[in-house]
Amino acid sequence: MKIAILSVTEPAKDLALEIQEKLLKNPRIIKCNVFHKNVRKNMEFAFNNYDGIIAIMATGIIVRMIAPLIQSKDKDPAILTIDEKGNYVVSLLSGHLGGGNQLCSYIAKLINSKPVISTSTDVNFKYGIDSLAYKNFYKIIDVKKILPFNKAILDNVPLQISSDKDLKFLTKYFSNSTFTKLPDKRLGELSTINFKFSKDDEEYSIDLYEKKLVIGIGSRRGKTKNNILIAIDEVLNNLKIPISRVNSIATISIKKDEHGIIQACTELNKKLEIIDIDEVRNFHHEDCSKSDFVYNKFGIDGVCEQCAMISVGPNGKLIHKKIAMDGVTVAVAISND
Amino acid sequence: MKIAILSVTEPAKDLALEIQEKLLKNPRIIKCNVFHKNVRKNMEFAFNNYDGIIAIMATGIIVRMIAPLIQSKDKDPAILTIDEKGNYVVSLLSGHLGGGNQLCSYIAKLINSKPVISTSTDVNFKYGIDSLAYKNFYKIIDVKKILPFNKAILDNVPLQISSDKDLKFLTKYFSNSTFTKLPDKRLGELSTINFKFSKDDEEYSIDLYEKKLVIGIGSRRGKTKNNILIAIDEVLNNLKIPISRVNSIATISIKKDEHGIIQACTELNKKLEIIDIDEVRNFHHEDCSKSDFVYNKFGIDGVCEQCAMISVGPNGKLIHKKIAMDGVTVAVAISND
Repeated sequence: MKIAILSVTEPAKDLALEIQEKLLKNPRIIKCNVFHKNVRKNMEFAFNNYDGIIAIMATGIIVRMIAPLIQSKDKDPAILTIDEKGNYVVSLLSGHLGGGNQLCSYIAKLINSKPVISTSTDVNFKYGIDSLAYKNFYKIIDVKKILPFNKAILDNVPLQISSDKDLKFLTKYFSNSTFTKLPDKRLGELSTINFKFSKDDEEYSIDLYEKKLVIGIGSRRGKTKNNILIAIDEVLNNLKIPISRVNSIATISIKKDEHGIIQACTELNKKLEIIDIDEVRNFHHEDCSKSDFVYNKFGIDGVCEQCAMISVGPNGKLIHKKIAMDGVTVAVAISND
Repeated sequence: MKIAILSVTEPAKDLALEIQEKLLKNPRIIKCNVFHKNVRKNMEFAFNNYDGIIAIMATGIIVRMIAPLIQSKDKDPAILTIDEKGNYVVSLLSGHLGGGNQLCSYIAKLINSKPVISTSTDVNFKYGIDSLAYKNFYKIIDVKKILPFNKAILDNVPLQISSDKDLKFLTKYFSNSTFTKLPDKRLGELSTINFKFSKDDEEYSIDLYEKKLVIGIGSRRGKTKNNILIAIDEVLNNLKIPISRVNSIATISIKKDEHGIIQACTELNKKLEIIDIDEVRNFHHEDCSKSDFVYNKFGIDGVCEQCAMISVGPNGKLIHKKIAMDGVTVAVAISND
C-alpha cells in the first residue's frame, strides 16, 4: 500500500512523522510520504497517486477537500482521519474494497488510538464480501452486486460458494454456507470464486476474480530449497494469505538453474516464470527499490521486485516490498486486473 | 434545531427512532424526522431543509452522498454519522458554525455512545471563535478570517476583545485576553463583538454580529412579573445564554396591558415589542405549533412562537419551541442575519 499522510498543524505533523516512521517498518507499505500544509493541492495529488490517505486534521476539512475528487468505491483510495491528539482513527472512505477498515485498525494499534469503523458488516463482526475480496486480492467487477450480498451475510442467509480452488475454509466465515469444489484450472491460471444465494424466489450471484499474484525471488548462488521456502513463508505470513493464493513465482533468467528455487516451486506446485535479464534491464518503476551493487554487477535495478512486477504486467503493483533473508530476496506484486 | 435522522438497515432504524423520541423532549429541537431507506433522495432533501443530519450508516455512504451537496461551512448543515450499533457518534461536517460538535456531544450522551470530535480547538479544550459565534447566536460574515483566529487561540496569542455589551466574562475562555467595553447601543439595537490580535507585525480583526434574538411571550390574564421571569429564566437556561444576549421581548397586542409582562421587561431592561393581532392572524409557519383552543378563540395559530418569529423577520428561525409554565408560554427565535 502506498500511503500519504497529510497534516496542517504542528502537533499533527509530529503525529504524521511518528506514523510514517512506524509504517515504513512494515514491508506491506511500499511508500509513505508526509505532506504538510497546502491541504487542497496535496489532497488532490494524494488522491490520485496513493492507495491510502491518512489526514490528521478536522474531519470537516477533509470531507470538503475530497468532495470534488470522489469517484466510486472500487477506485477511490482508503481515507482515514485522525484528530491531532490521536484520540480516534476514523475510517472515512473505501473501508472495504479500498482496505480502509483494515488500515484503520492497524493505524489505531500503532499509535494506541481507537479505531472508528462504521460499516454494518464490521460492527456486527461479519465478513463483507468486499472485505474478503480486498484482503485476498480478488477483484469484483460489478460492484453494485456487493450490497445485496453483504445484506444477506448480515441476515445469515445461507450462501453457496464454489471455486476451482479448495476454499472450504471460507464456510467458517459465512453462517450456513456450503462449498463446492469445481475442477482445477491449469497451473498458473487465474481462479474465481462464485457466491450465490436465493431470497424471495430471486437468485443472486457474484464472482470474485483473482488478480495475478506473483512472488518474485532473487537468490545468491547455491541457496537451498529450505532457504527459499522460509523466505516465501515470511511474505505469506505478512500478507496473511495461504500459499494456494499464489499464482506463480518469478525469477530472472540468470537464476533459472538455481536448484533451490526450482525445487521450492516443485514442492509448492507453483509455476516458475523466468524473466529475461534484458527485460529486467529495461524495467524501471518508481515503487521498486534500486540496488547499486546489483546495478553495477548486472546493469539492472534489482531482481525480486522487478521480476514480480514484470510478471503481473502493466499497472500491477507491489504489495510486499523486497525483504532479504539469508541470501534470498523476495517481494510480491499483483496485477491491476 | 431541525434534525433529520437517516437510516438504511433495520437496526439503524431502531436507533433512529430511539434518538428521535429523546430529541423531541428537548425544546431546542424544533423538528425531528426519521427518513428510512432512499438515502440519496432523502439526503438531498435533508441537506436543504434541516440544520442537522444524523446519518446512521457507514461513513463512506454518507461522504459519497453529501459530496455533490456541500457548499460552505457557513451554509451546510451539521452532519453526524453513527454506526448502526451506536458505538461512536462522529462529527463529520460543520462542527463549529453549524453546531455539529455540540450536537455530537449531546447525541453521544443521549445514547451512551462516544463522541468523535476532531477540530483542533476542541481536541485541545479551547474555544473556537466560530463555536463561540454558534453557541451565542452571532454571525460571522467573513468566514475566511476564522482560521487565523482559531490558530491564534490554540497558540495562546493574546486577544483584544471589545463590545458595546459587557462581555468581560469572555476573557475566561481566551488566555491572556483583555476586554474593552464600548459605549452602550440603544435599547434593542444589535450588538457586535470585535476580536483583534497582532502577530509578526500584522494586525488581525474579526467581527461577530448579533442575530436578533427575541423571546416571544403569551400569558393568561393577571400573571405576575415573577411568573414571567421564571418562564424566561427557563428558556435562557435551556439555551445556555445570559439575559444580556436577549435583544427584545415580544407579545401580542391583546396582551399589551398585562402588568406582569410589562414589569418583567422593565426589570430586565428589555424592549417590549407589541405585535398586532392582525399580523399574527396572517402569520403561518410550518415550524410553529398551532393551538386549536387559541385558534377558535382569537383566529390565530398561537402567540409566543408567532410573535417571536414575526419580530425577528423573514427567514428567522425558532431556537426554542413553546413551553408553558403556570399560565405563561415562552418561545425564542433568531433572525436569519
